[in-house]
Amino acid sequence: MKKRVGIIGAGVVGTAVGVVLHNKGYEITGVYDLRPESTQEFVDRVKCTAHTSPQEVSRSADILFITTNDTAIKEVVSHLVECKAFRVGQAVIHMSGSQSSEVLDEAKKFGAYVLSVHPLQAFAGIDQAVKNLPSSVFSIEGDTGAYDTAEALVKAMDGEHFFIDREAKPLYHAGACVVSNYMVTVVSFGIRLLETAGIPRDKAIKALKPLIDGTVQNIENLGIPDALTGPIARGDLKTVLKHLECLEKMAPEHARLYSCLGFYTASVAREKGTINAETAEQFQRILGEQADKKKGG
Amino acid sequence: MKKRVGIIGAGVVGTAVGVVLHNKGYEITGVYDLRPESTQEFVDRVKCTAHTSPQEVSRSADILFITTNDTAIKEVVSHLVECKAFRVGQAVIHMSGSQSSEVLDEAKKFGAYVLSVHPLQAFAGIDQAVKNLPSSVFSIEGDTGAYDTAEALVKAMDGEHFFIDREAKPLYHAGACVVSNYMVTVVSFGIRLLETAGIPRDKAIKALKPLIDGTVQNIENLGIPDALTGPIARGDLKTVLKHLECLEKMAPEHARLYSCLGFYTASVAREKGTINAETAEQFQRILGEQADKKKGG
Repeated sequence: MKKRVGIIGAGVVGTAVGVVLHNKGYEITGVYDLRPESTQEFVDRVKCTAHTSPQEVSRSADILFITTNDTAIKEVVSHLVECKAFRVGQAVIHMSGSQSSEVLDEAKKFGAYVLSVHPLQAFAGIDQAVKNLPSSVFSIEGDTGAYDTAEALVKAMDGEHFFIDREAKPLYHAGACVVSNYMVTVVSFGIRLLETAGIPRDKAIKALKPLIDGTVQNIENLGIPDALTGPIARGDLKTVLKHLECLEKMAPEHARLYSCLGFYTASVAREKGTINAETAEQFQRILGEQADKKKGG
Repeated sequence: MKKRVGIIGAGVVGTAVGVVLHNKGYEITGVYDLRPESTQEFVDRVKCTAHTSPQEVSRSADILFITTNDTAIKEVVSHLVECKAFRVGQAVIHMSGSQSSEVLDEAKKFGAYVLSVHPLQAFAGIDQAVKNLPSSVFSIEGDTGAYDTAEALVKAMDGEHFFIDREAKPLYHAGACVVSNYMVTVVSFGIRLLETAGIPRDKAIKALKPLIDGTVQNIENLGIPDALTGPIARGDLKTVLKHLECLEKMAPEHARLYSCLGFYTASVAREKGTINAETAEQFQRILGEQADKKKGG
């Protein structure tokens, strides 16, 4: 018999998980959200009880998802502790990337297991989330005693998973943020350099588009580190020195970020094998010095 | 009457330009390449004379493209100077991104105009280049007396253009490299953080794929800075502090790049308008301090 699932927090992720697990035959016993319209939306999609308090949901469930916004998770847990609404053997799960299962630890006093189960996806809306959850890779972190429950849930959602240690969760989240946020940062940085070179912003964005598309295709087709091209990948120190000289003259405030990225890029080029250790060190000496020279960013 | 075009250097770009201009009715008077097979490939695609020396090409042409590899451009120019193969009013053009038209300056002694005309594209092969040149945006830099020639050429290739100053060419090229190379750097950096968090490389790459795709879609649909999401965009200092603490503990060598990128990201978030000036300063103070603490990368 499948375990009974309750959901507190019927936002995009909570609702999508409810829909997917419901479709896979899990019994969804109840839902609660502060916003009645969210609760209603959930009930419309998953025929289940709309509870009027979080403790009712928790009491009805073997597996409790707390899928509120990140900052509310701890409050919900404290409230459920006050109500003594946790119980032995229950799996209490949140799906936040930025927090570990530590935020659920109070539930352990009642013999519950705590877990964070996080899909590496950005969900724009419920329908898209229902569609994309199955192609996600999930991180599982928390009580090993409930790993089998977490694995079964991810399997039911047709996802893949890996386990991480509680201490490493912020590093994992930093890695995900680096990719999804700092890609935007790098494109913005490139546009700003083109603007500083005198190119109107609209034209700069249009001009860079083929490079962005080509780079993503290369990442897709060749993988990392093979997708790396450009002066550092081909050991062209002269071009990098020209960039640095021009940055120093026309945009000194941007020399540090260029150099920090270049420093790391030399290690990617080394990994690709298109430059030798000596050349990589030469790049890193010059770019490291540049990065050290600047203060504050 | 259309001007006569000669091409020295029948690599991917030189050949593609020859094909496109030929199709647009330009008279291609001759081609030369050190490698006979490249010259032959060009002649097969563009019915024209295969010359046995660069000076013959130059003498036959009103518009001379020197589309050799970057390092050879200067040698070719010196050779043509020795042969007195330039002439008054001739337009001498290279298509390198990393060099300005300065490398062609010797031709000016003969009354020729020098230009660099660079498409912001990465070309994988001749056919793809022939297809993609028309959707490119070209930078034009050099003698203003030949701007009309350069504009006409770009127009013939169905491209768009902008002009840049000679001194700004390296900054422009740095901007293009930042986007096409450092996007790979950032993805590689994210993978490395996930690996440090204990996730096998293959799994990390697979897990990050939806984030990469989603981010590129956001850049496409929302533009810069609106595509920015994540802790800095929403002013979530607590999460960034958790990242820094965990980096310090588990991957101190990566704290600087994370911080330099974050410092700049705060200005993107400010531009997006989701954080105020005070919050942006707070991020930059903390991330700037982190970046200053580290040395060498």
